[in-house]
Amino acid sequence: MDFGFDQRTAELHEKLTDFMDEEVYPAEHTLEQQVAQLEDPWARPPVVEDLKRAARERGLWNLFLPDPVHGAGLTNLQYAPLAEITGRSPHLAPEALNCAAPDTGNMEVLAQFGSPEQQDRWLKPLLEGQIRSAFCMTEPDVASSDATNIATSIERDGDGYVINGRKWWSSGAMNPNCALFIVMGKTDPAAERHRQQTMVCVPRDTPGITIKRGMHVFGYTDALHGGHAEVLFDNVRVPADALIAGEGQGFAIAQARLGPGRIHHCMRLIGMAERALELLCGRVSQRVAFGRPLAEQGVIQEWIAESRVRIEQARLLVLKTAWLMDTVGNKGAHTEIQAIKIAVPSMAEWVIDKAIQAYGAAGVSQDTPLAHLWASARTLRLADGPDEVHKASLARRELRKYS
Amino acid sequence: MDFGFDQRTAELHEKLTDFMDEEVYPAEHTLEQQVAQLEDPWARPPVVEDLKRAARERGLWNLFLPDPVHGAGLTNLQYAPLAEITGRSPHLAPEALNCAAPDTGNMEVLAQFGSPEQQDRWLKPLLEGQIRSAFCMTEPDVASSDATNIATSIERDGDGYVINGRKWWSSGAMNPNCALFIVMGKTDPAAERHRQQTMVCVPRDTPGITIKRGMHVFGYTDALHGGHAEVLFDNVRVPADALIAGEGQGFAIAQARLGPGRIHHCMRLIGMAERALELLCGRVSQRVAFGRPLAEQGVIQEWIAESRVRIEQARLLVLKTAWLMDTVGNKGAHTEIQAIKIAVPSMAEWVIDKAIQAYGAAGVSQDTPLAHLWASARTLRLADGPDEVHKASLARRELRKYS
Amino acid sequence: MDFGFDQRTAELHEKLTDFMDEEVYPAEHTLEQQVAQLEDPWARPPVVEDLKRAARERGLWNLFLPDPVHGAGLTNLQYAPLAEITGRSPHLAPEALNCAAPDTGNMEVLAQFGSPEQQDRWLKPLLEGQIRSAFCMTEPDVASSDATNIATSIERDGDGYVINGRKWWSSGAMNPNCALFIVMGKTDPAAERHRQQTMVCVPRDTPGITIKRGMHVFGYTDALHGGHAEVLFDNVRVPADALIAGEGQGFAIAQARLGPGRIHHCMRLIGMAERALELLCGRVSQRVAFGRPLAEQGVIQEWIAESRVRIEQARLLVLKTAWLMDTVGNKGAHTEIQAIKIAVPSMAEWVIDKAIQAYGAAGVSQDTPLAHLWASARTLRLADGPDEVHKASLARRELRKYS
Amino acid sequence: MDFGFDQRTAELHEKLTDFMDEEVYPAEHTLEQQVAQLEDPWARPPVVEDLKRAARERGLWNLFLPDPVHGAGLTNLQYAPLAEITGRSPHLAPEALNCAAPDTGNMEVLAQFGSPEQQDRWLKPLLEGQIRSAFCMTEPDVASSDATNIATSIERDGDGYVINGRKWWSSGAMNPNCALFIVMGKTDPAAERHRQQTMVCVPRDTPGITIKRGMHVFGYTDALHGGHAEVLFDNVRVPADALIAGEGQGFAIAQARLGPGRIHHCMRLIGMAERALELLCGRVSQRVAFGRPLAEQGVIQEWIAESRVRIEQARLLVLKTAWLMDTVGNKGAHTEIQAIKIAVPSMAEWVIDKAIQAYGAAGVSQDTPLAHLWASARTLRLADGPDEVHKASLARRELRKYS
Repeated sequence: MDFGFDQRTAELHEKLTDFMDEEVYPAEHTLEQQVAQLEDPWARPPVVEDLKRAARERGLWNLFLPDPVHGAGLTNLQYAPLAEITGRSPHLAPEALNCAAPDTGNMEVLAQFGSPEQQDRWLKPLLEGQIRSAFCMTEPDVASSDATNIATSIERDGDGYVINGRKWWSSGAMNPNCALFIVMGKTDPAAERHRQQTMVCVPRDTPGITIKRGMHVFGYTDALHGGHAEVLFDNVRVPADALIAGEGQGFAIAQARLGPGRIHHCMRLIGMAERALELLCGRVSQRVAFGRPLAEQGVIQEWIAESRVRIEQARLLVLKTAWLMDTVGNKGAHTEIQAIKIAVPSMAEWVIDKAIQAYGAAGVSQDTPLAHLWASARTLRLADGPDEVHKASLARRELRKYS
Repeated sequence: MDFGFDQRTAELHEKLTDFMDEEVYPAEHTLEQQVAQLEDPWARPPVVEDLKRAARERGLWNLFLPDPVHGAGLTNLQYAPLAEITGRSPHLAPEALNCAAPDTGNMEVLAQFGSPEQQDRWLKPLLEGQIRSAFCMTEPDVASSDATNIATSIERDGDGYVINGRKWWSSGAMNPNCALFIVMGKTDPAAERHRQQTMVCVPRDTPGITIKRGMHVFGYTDALHGGHAEVLFDNVRVPADALIAGEGQGFAIAQARLGPGRIHHCMRLIGMAERALELLCGRVSQRVAFGRPLAEQGVIQEWIAESRVRIEQARLLVLKTAWLMDTVGNKGAHTEIQAIKIAVPSMAEWVIDKAIQAYGAAGVSQDTPLAHLWASARTLRLADGPDEVHKASLARRELRKYS
Repeated sequence: MDFGFDQRTAELHEKLTDFMDEEVYPAEHTLEQQVAQLEDPWARPPVVEDLKRAARERGLWNLFLPDPVHGAGLTNLQYAPLAEITGRSPHLAPEALNCAAPDTGNMEVLAQFGSPEQQDRWLKPLLEGQIRSAFCMTEPDVASSDATNIATSIERDGDGYVINGRKWWSSGAMNPNCALFIVMGKTDPAAERHRQQTMVCVPRDTPGITIKRGMHVFGYTDALHGGHAEVLFDNVRVPADALIAGEGQGFAIAQARLGPGRIHHCMRLIGMAERALELLCGRVSQRVAFGRPLAEQGVIQEWIAESRVRIEQARLLVLKTAWLMDTVGNKGAHTEIQAIKIAVPSMAEWVIDKAIQAYGAAGVSQDTPLAHLWASARTLRLADGPDEVHKASLARRELRKYS
Repeated sequence: MDFGFDQRTAELHEKLTDFMDEEVYPAEHTLEQQVAQLEDPWARPPVVEDLKRAARERGLWNLFLPDPVHGAGLTNLQYAPLAEITGRSPHLAPEALNCAAPDTGNMEVLAQFGSPEQQDRWLKPLLEGQIRSAFCMTEPDVASSDATNIATSIERDGDGYVINGRKWWSSGAMNPNCALFIVMGKTDPAAERHRQQTMVCVPRDTPGITIKRGMHVFGYTDALHGGHAEVLFDNVRVPADALIAGEGQGFAIAQARLGPGRIHHCMRLIGMAERALELLCGRVSQRVAFGRPLAEQGVIQEWIAESRVRIEQARLLVLKTAWLMDTVGNKGAHTEIQAIKIAVPSMAEWVIDKAIQAYGAAGVSQDTPLAHLWASARTLRLADGPDEVHKASLARRELRKYS
């Protein structure tokens, strides 16, 4: 057992920290100013492309992708501490490094399951950061915690397929750079439960697609990331080669996509919690009430200690999970992936809540990143299945030893 | 001891419940549609005036005001269960009954401390619901939990006063109907600690006033209520008779204003929690996951039971506090007013959080009122001083018996 | 609505407070000394009988019994604040007033359902405090949260009945004054679900009864109260007139017994929490660490404030429940009785835990009453059905409005 | 970074697991029977010596001692998973392996700071398991969280020293095998704050020592371990060579002793929590209520999942702390040692509480180990300084980065 970084991780960690200090944190203010001047709320503030260029020049690009041909070839354990750092500025850093959801998951899917033509047409520009993509899975009318519920149909029709259905929370779909939708639907509702689903590549401008509206998250539109769209698919036709890995592969691909997706979220949440704790400590060191700095108040100190203790524990669990994914595979790490999905969002929510409280009214406003960080953490207690579903599943697995 | 309603309360309770069912809940959907079509985000959707007319016709008007000349003449204990009901639709019902903050507090101040001229000019149209008002107290640069920190100056100058300072969280200031700012500042920084402050009536269109921006609460602008403004006062001149009750009375007026203000918030929070619990129960009774309604899951049942138990306790504490305010006065009820300020917002936050979780992604979005309710409840853990300040104060009072 | 005491309650409240101050609190120390000198751990320290005499002289006797012939004739709402006070010294005061469980429940049963002969033989000496009694209901082999599970058999045999079974947690059974066991068993396992059970009066010295052992609660034997016995009934024969109200009445009697039993526990728990808070405040006012009294530390102040807020809310819910029992009956108050069963033990546990923490190692030891109070409160999260059963039941009742 | 065991740890882990399965768990029942038959409550049940012999034969002896001459020479990181396992049966396994507190700490002190004569006289028989020892530090009259408060005096007198003072919570002092007290007192109250204290070896039978009483922990006397004694030192005379490392070294030795002591407690607490979770899962798999096993109830599943998630996180934090102690020393691991002191006892308390609840009344009784485990975990939120002191200290260290 050993808790130290290997050399490559240590080097990238230092490089990335420098990049954050020199480029990303200063860009947060620039971003705010540029966003305030946009006429179209969905337009792209130029600072993002500047950061992408800078990150790429520093060799901080596609770090998430374990595939050494297409990506940086890092293990999950090596990527974890880096993803954490990007979580400290979650609206800029992940995209700057071309490591932002949902593109990361989509790139993984295309790298692992895509045909050479699909890789050429979609994976390549995604890896270059030239286009972005959305993942259309969740549907408003069914419980998203059970993937077999999906109702969107992908029907064979002549030499192609026709898609009909309604999706929502298709994040990034309203980003003007978004060119690709990866859509999950059912090709064969009569097949075995996990063989009914299929994934398909759909160019965003295909006729029949309507973006109905953007979903809000506690008042936020998340416009910078292309929002969270409700999308109608009304007789949307795609050629047969748009299917990823063929009919009936959708559930398996979704499962393969989820493991890394969840751990990436958790890694970034650790960084979000660290940022919140940093903001909290900075605030209470400066702010004076009733004649002394808030930092001297026992309740505030308790928040800080608890935050530190909770963050450390959560980080270690994420790191161990990454190590298990590397050594025994995503399936072998199933329990731990569920465990971090349960533990980390609520930990981050707790820490950010305390930072908000320390800031008073400023904490809930646009004057700190905290309220928006909180909304993201809160939402991750729901995304990819609510905590309660994961808890019940983890418990049943634990109980199997006793039956 | 007796836990039943008196006759007048029972009658008004029934009337108000009918009004909610027949007018307010249906208007929530209308409101949403009207808001979506507004060009100016600060404009007033017509449904609000419709509701005000309807409420007034039904005799549901100015219920908050204990003054029998200007208002309905209800005791706090009589008003409490009514205010609770308005909290069930907090963006419509309180204003419909002319019982919305911050106007209620401002009307109380004017009724109790205003000169006949001030009452004629400001109180009358406020009581008629013709204008609205803002209360400019909190400042960005000092800890708002300690009212003696206020830095805005109100300096004597010839036959008038000149105001300089920066306020924020002046709720309602961007409402086009807002005509009056009641501003708190210091006329004599050298006076005894609680005699430095003064309140003054400032017409909103007085030269020197600049609305700098609206503060967001999580992602919400609260435009319907006129937002939460940051306001600059740059040499704003008012005549001497704009002072309320004279120089040095500001702190005392603020204290008088706070008691009822806090209990009104708490009453409405009870209603918000009830509404959330109702939504939760409705949702889980319908939504099926993994083959059975969510309502049959043990964890959901625990949320419901805990919610019911917490709401009941909080409501009783609010009612007892109202009774104490009526029988021994706001000062005699000081500990209890603090107690509800501590207990009720966090209770409501907890209940609403569970309802959000039961709704999944819809819960954090604009498709239910829950996310916005949550943001309001969360903010009330901060408004009028963070929980921690009230806890420390309540504890010191408890400890006095032992020293 | 009115939150003040009526005159009789106020008078008894004052009288009882005086009795606590003048007799009970000083007797706690005496008790400890007498217990330390007992050779038989189950023997009775003489101070208890002294207190009983003193209480009776002051007119503080059988206050729990609403029956005006046999008892004090108080309503539940009148008794509640008095029972609370006795909870402040739970090992002395309830018994001193002849208001201790399980005798209170047994006396209620006999007063309401007993035959004149049973009342003469058992109720009279119980009301006089001459004997004590046990209630034999819970069984080790079945889930006690579901009363229909009971396995003990009461079989007709000639002109009597024969009892066979195993009970545990028969509190008070090892008290040398204990003369009566009220035993619940099944006379007709084939009858309708709630008509199978019967209750029967069994003299403690009946052949066939074996006290197997005393159950511990954490490390406590609760010897002062006669412990918690595991009892074997091996062909225990009783005459036919030992049945209370006849065959098949057992479930109904048990239900009638439970409502008051639960609220009495909750009333006393409020008093236990108040005592703990008092001890906490006294401790932190005196104890100095790192140069200042603990009372000045923010975390301690938060405990005090939270304790005060939680106690107040719980008390009001208990009082409202008592009022409902008086006005709409135990059945009408069913939800509220469950609500206090859920809310109050965990509230008391929380408050006492904080007091323990403030005392440090002394808090877990025999040098304060806190550790024992804690064990009692913790156990009441289980007794009469664990919290979880009550929560599920309360939730299902709440959900009925939506189906 | 690597989360796997090294070979030696893996081997010892397997050996120890076998020992637990084959010897320790079966001995728990034997222990109970032997204890029930003891006439003297402080006598030693023979099963303990049997286990010690068996453990030693298997090479499971003195694993705690990193010193390769006197002990097993394991690093903290190697010992941690082994200590965890012993925590699963905390009243038997640690002593069986000669790894029980307070002897472990005392042996570390003697191995590191003792003179050759002290090592020969005391360390040797301790390492052989022939005698046991107590550590007399805490005092009833001062806040034990601040070690500089100690009031016991150790005064030079001729060629020796004379000790006067009162200690309590001297664990193990009433064990008939206890031969040595290591006593901390002040030799020079006028010296610099951390140079006033001295430690001294005192044979238990030295004249002037009175064991006043045993302290209880939630009703438990912990007699098996020799209890927790209150000890009077009345002119207790020792020769000069009884001092450990000379005058003024006491504080430094105490600090050196605390780090390992705390981590050992935390390691065992992980094991206690695992045992509780195992008992919980076993119970709910078997116990049927309302027609189905408790294991199928959602609330129970939530407890299991939460327990698993909390245990995993806590374990990783303990392991990382052990690694830090090995790589950067106890001082470098200061924050992490505090962090586990804060995190682990409350985690274990939480898990054990849930197991108790699943067992119902059996859970608080002597029929499961749970109630006693709980009392131990609860007490460790206090021992070596209450959580609150550690939190404040950890927070101040975190805040230093910001000042």
